[in-house]
Amino acid sequence: MPSAKTESGSVHVITSGQLLDQWQGHRGLTRRVIDAFPENDLFNYSIGGMRTFAKLAMEFIGMAVPTLQGAITGEWPSAPLEPPGTKADLLKLWDSTTEEIDRLWPTIPPERFQETDTAFGQFTMPIYGLLLYVIDNEIHHRGQGYVYLRALGFEPPPFYDRP
Amino acid sequence: MPSAKTESGSVHVITSGQLLDQWQGHRGLTRRVIDAFPENDLFNYSIGGMRTFAKLAMEFIGMAVPTLQGAITGEWPSAPLEPPGTKADLLKLWDSTTEEIDRLWPTIPPERFQETDTAFGQFTMPIYGLLLYVIDNEIHHRGQGYVYLRALGFEPPPFYDRP
Repeated sequence: MPSAKTESGSVHVITSGQLLDQWQGHRGLTRRVIDAFPENDLFNYSIGGMRTFAKLAMEFIGMAVPTLQGAITGEWPSAPLEPPGTKADLLKLWDSTTEEIDRLWPTIPPERFQETDTAFGQFTMPIYGLLLYVIDNEIHHRGQGYVYLRALGFEPPPFYDRP
Repeated sequence: MPSAKTESGSVHVITSGQLLDQWQGHRGLTRRVIDAFPENDLFNYSIGGMRTFAKLAMEFIGMAVPTLQGAITGEWPSAPLEPPGTKADLLKLWDSTTEEIDRLWPTIPPERFQETDTAFGQFTMPIYGLLLYVIDNEIHHRGQGYVYLRALGFEPPPFYDRP
């Protein structure tokens, strides 16, 4: 058991398994947001010159596994992903990413979470901060997808529903 | 020092002080997003029947301190907040909330983070999950503010910039 009674700010509050659940819960919601878009709007609709939700979803997919690989190995692979042309193929890629995250996450060496590294040659921060960044970036852009759906007249899936 | 070498999922990865910094970093960005809106658009503009960004900001303010009070005491006060009529007053309320968060956070009893409670009579989850919910809800709706700003022709502050 970790000691929780040290100096207030150094109390540990979230475990590795809880952070994984948090991420996958958000990813499950993002999957439902992708699925809520009509095929054509997913790949073509946007507001104010922003990216389509398909492009945003590809960004989430493109960050997930490479970030875990970097967290695990200290090497930061960066291979551009070819975006699929249909919603079905995008969801298939989403689901294989989900499995890969579940497979890789438990292999992150425990001490790595608090180590600082330079991810992809440009982002210098502790690994836990980098993982939060990846999660937060998805929440941020998914919120934009909610506006796209509302503007198109569709009810988005509830934000709090992340089984 | 907590032991980080127990079973993989139970490794503790984020401290209390790091979670506070994460929240206040996001809140600093949200403050800049509020400030990026012209006064009139802050209180009147929205897309697709959604709330104005002033109303969303009031939701963030309304959740912050009451959630901390509940985390600390197990009592969940819920008093409706009167929304201010000007951007200057909204930012003033934002800043006093920032100070109150910094004051209250270190008084959360360490064991509370992993305790389950029912917040405001309706949300049953561990306290750490509730705190993440409050942060995530702000990221989610702030992302919607980015779309409002883009649609209005304004460049939002960069998402990654959270000093």
